[in-house]
Amino acid sequence: MGGYPDSAVGDLVIAGEKIGSRLILGTGGAASLAALDEAVTASGTAMVTVALRRVDAAAGQPGGLLDLLERRGVKLLPNTAGCYTAREAVTVARLAREAFGTSWVKLEVIGDDRTLLPDAVELVAAADELVADGFTVLPYTTDDPVLARRLADVGCAAVMPAGSPIGSGLGINNPHHVRLLRQAVDVPVILDAGIGTASDAALAMELGCDGVLLASAVTRAQDPAAMAAAMRHAVAAGRLAYGAGRIPRRFHALASTPDEGRPDL
Amino acid sequence: MGGYPDSAVGDLVIAGEKIGSRLILGTGGAASLAALDEAVTASGTAMVTVALRRVDAAAGQPGGLLDLLERRGVKLLPNTAGCYTAREAVTVARLAREAFGTSWVKLEVIGDDRTLLPDAVELVAAADELVADGFTVLPYTTDDPVLARRLADVGCAAVMPAGSPIGSGLGINNPHHVRLLRQAVDVPVILDAGIGTASDAALAMELGCDGVLLASAVTRAQDPAAMAAAMRHAVAAGRLAYGAGRIPRRFHALASTPDEGRPDL
Amino acid sequence: MGGYPDSAVGDLVIAGEKIGSRLILGTGGAASLAALDEAVTASGTAMVTVALRRVDAAAGQPGGLLDLLERRGVKLLPNTAGCYTAREAVTVARLAREAFGTSWVKLEVIGDDRTLLPDAVELVAAADELVADGFTVLPYTTDDPVLARRLADVGCAAVMPAGSPIGSGLGINNPHHVRLLRQAVDVPVILDAGIGTASDAALAMELGCDGVLLASAVTRAQDPAAMAAAMRHAVAAGRLAYGAGRIPRRFHALASTPDEGRPDL
Amino acid sequence: MGGYPDSAVGDLVIAGEKIGSRLILGTGGAASLAALDEAVTASGTAMVTVALRRVDAAAGQPGGLLDLLERRGVKLLPNTAGCYTAREAVTVARLAREAFGTSWVKLEVIGDDRTLLPDAVELVAAADELVADGFTVLPYTTDDPVLARRLADVGCAAVMPAGSPIGSGLGINNPHHVRLLRQAVDVPVILDAGIGTASDAALAMELGCDGVLLASAVTRAQDPAAMAAAMRHAVAAGRLAYGAGRIPRRFHALASTPDEGRPDL
Repeated sequence: MGGYPDSAVGDLVIAGEKIGSRLILGTGGAASLAALDEAVTASGTAMVTVALRRVDAAAGQPGGLLDLLERRGVKLLPNTAGCYTAREAVTVARLAREAFGTSWVKLEVIGDDRTLLPDAVELVAAADELVADGFTVLPYTTDDPVLARRLADVGCAAVMPAGSPIGSGLGINNPHHVRLLRQAVDVPVILDAGIGTASDAALAMELGCDGVLLASAVTRAQDPAAMAAAMRHAVAAGRLAYGAGRIPRRFHALASTPDEGRPDL
Repeated sequence: MGGYPDSAVGDLVIAGEKIGSRLILGTGGAASLAALDEAVTASGTAMVTVALRRVDAAAGQPGGLLDLLERRGVKLLPNTAGCYTAREAVTVARLAREAFGTSWVKLEVIGDDRTLLPDAVELVAAADELVADGFTVLPYTTDDPVLARRLADVGCAAVMPAGSPIGSGLGINNPHHVRLLRQAVDVPVILDAGIGTASDAALAMELGCDGVLLASAVTRAQDPAAMAAAMRHAVAAGRLAYGAGRIPRRFHALASTPDEGRPDL
Repeated sequence: MGGYPDSAVGDLVIAGEKIGSRLILGTGGAASLAALDEAVTASGTAMVTVALRRVDAAAGQPGGLLDLLERRGVKLLPNTAGCYTAREAVTVARLAREAFGTSWVKLEVIGDDRTLLPDAVELVAAADELVADGFTVLPYTTDDPVLARRLADVGCAAVMPAGSPIGSGLGINNPHHVRLLRQAVDVPVILDAGIGTASDAALAMELGCDGVLLASAVTRAQDPAAMAAAMRHAVAAGRLAYGAGRIPRRFHALASTPDEGRPDL
Repeated sequence: MGGYPDSAVGDLVIAGEKIGSRLILGTGGAASLAALDEAVTASGTAMVTVALRRVDAAAGQPGGLLDLLERRGVKLLPNTAGCYTAREAVTVARLAREAFGTSWVKLEVIGDDRTLLPDAVELVAAADELVADGFTVLPYTTDDPVLARRLADVGCAAVMPAGSPIGSGLGINNPHHVRLLRQAVDVPVILDAGIGTASDAALAMELGCDGVLLASAVTRAQDPAAMAAAMRHAVAAGRLAYGAGRIPRRFHALASTPDEGRPDL
């Protein structure tokens, strides 16, 4: 786009593997497979999360979800949605590994169904066990930098902090914590959950996140494909801005055109 | 970009004229003409503001600013930067019309040099006089919806509210007022001043603005061309998101993957 | 209260006159005179605004609003609520001067009935005329520092910027502008409109305002007297904090108990 | 104060014990014992936290810290500041029980010294062990509602979420999480850490917290006693406002004085 190379946005690299886009899509909430297909294409995503139970019946069916993702060249990232304990999550992760033939897993261990926020204690236990079992673990976590470092320390390949509760559309409730978390770990940080609109995704990238994961913001928008395209632009915008070195914030104004009254070009 | 047409971002139309981009660039603060040229190209802008005095010496010089803008096919929008009264601003606008051969003017009547915020009373008086004199007037104004309507009522072709003080990089200090202002007028609204980074520009568009004008955020960034590209993406992102119908904000979470435990695709 | 003197909160001084409280109350929205009486008492206010038309019938009636305020030793501040032009506002101010025997006036010149924000141009014109006519003028204005300085320059005794639209309960939408405005004028600044709860009032004072004016936040609360007491504490809290010299904001933590492992008292 | 009873602010009750104030003070950062004494008095606090090591030398000395607190009738709450593991924290808690003759403990298990945020996993382990050992445990925690419920479930007598990092003065970074946390537990919630000024404390109470704990905001303010008085008012203000039933937030204005042009009292 324009005279500036899109390649400046760069690739997301997780566990040594290049992912061709910094935008990861969830499939939940899509009105139909056709709508999801359009959103996937418009988003330019290269990795999509899927819950194990969503594909029981359709797995392997031609024209089903897995088929669609394969046709689009999109990497599948199974998640453990709906698990409330480490034990459940580990079991589901293993089933998913069998079903999908991948040892990557987005690890979710939920604390309650009002906030869908992770349970810190169970999450660390599950991550520890799955890493030991050879999984590439991407845990959905809170914005707590100390917890994120624990997850990185047990060997997680990335951390995925919530911006705000899943599906809330509240964006990033605590940018300060996202910054602290970004400083606390060396693995990639993927902002996951809470994104409502494009500026939220741009902000996530400006805070130093390496990628963004979102589902409802696209799948439940009135025009999912348009919102997917918006998110694609937003992630590029935020990443470029992060690298471009923004101007500092100032209390007073600073004339863009200095007052000396002479041409300064 | 991707499967979604860039045309969905649409053209900015002011006074019946199509402007080929929703991003308007100011030239102040650029380190060199070469840097400005790169930024103009990377931004995809189609209209650039220039202060009269900045081009006194260089006007018409081959290789000068005007020459550059013409080569890039960019419309020139003279401004009245540095004017503190209606009388001054009207005089400068007329000189600019002579010098640049355009009756379009970005009208600035500044109240003081700490905030560089407009003086409401002088601004309305100057706008009134310039409209009567045949100018196409785009006034730099506050985020006050009542003042914006006054400016539209005297015949301004667009209104350009400040997000925050010029050069402050504080972004949009009062999104609520920008929304109220957007409802108050029928002419295009261009968010002008205060933008610091890409998410600010995306937010401006999500609030319903028709375009964004910025200078320092690009020209004074560490890498102006990269930030210009970021802003191009950000404006596209915000505009697409605005049209896409975002999800509502919710206090509690909403599972993207419903709990019924069955495939829903 | 406690060991610290309440006198540290200090008096509000307008036009050389000491007002015994920094909290000014509006009467609109009160469910009954009895409820208003309780709120007035609990708030500790010393000045109350009244719209001229609200007292037509009841003026001078024993047991009416004016009687109540007089019994409570509260100064009456007539306003020009409902006026949309300078001419109307000047007329109403003069009628109020006759009716109430005071040349103090809270000047409101409204731009429209959706935002109830002031019309800058009409406001300055009306203020100018009323000052010339001997009034002590307290204009309800926007948070625009340039407009505030204009009002001070024409001789207003204080300026009363809106935190957010009247009755919206949104609090202070743009604290940065309130700070800029505070620096721009030497007359007292009374935050007026938009306050929803106690922390909003405390913030107003911390930003350097000399007082707070509110109506709906108290009169329409479920328990007006409790909210009035809350506001009284909040104004004291904010004023004391403003004078106490708060700690600076820091990105990282600072241990309150240093790590040296020895008693430091 | 005024016609409204201070008793409406109510008492804080923890583990069945009435604490005479909703404001808890930390002692760290105080310039001198005399300064602390003034702050304690001005704050009206009834409970003060002390780190074990701070009192080694001075414990029991007439004119020392403990003596001061006893003279002021203030309950002492030992903390485990500086502990990084459950084991350390449990040990320090037991030493404190011996030294101070109280089984109440503010449990801190810190994750790192840049953020001083708690380590979720160690915190739960330590809380569990101390509760089993008969302590009344008040853990310093994050704003994570799931973690807070875990702490309540293992028997903690209250939970003390951070508003922002200790000593940062950033206030409450994520009010939404504090609301969610408030809903998640039945034990008292004490906002602890990050408070910078009075409006932060008022906001904490408006979000439903039962009390506020702060140290630096008072001890490191330019005028500690004035800031202590400010905090006392702020906590009262916020608590009263919480109980008073604030007005809803509205996008548009609502005239406090209706337009019907007749007296409505």
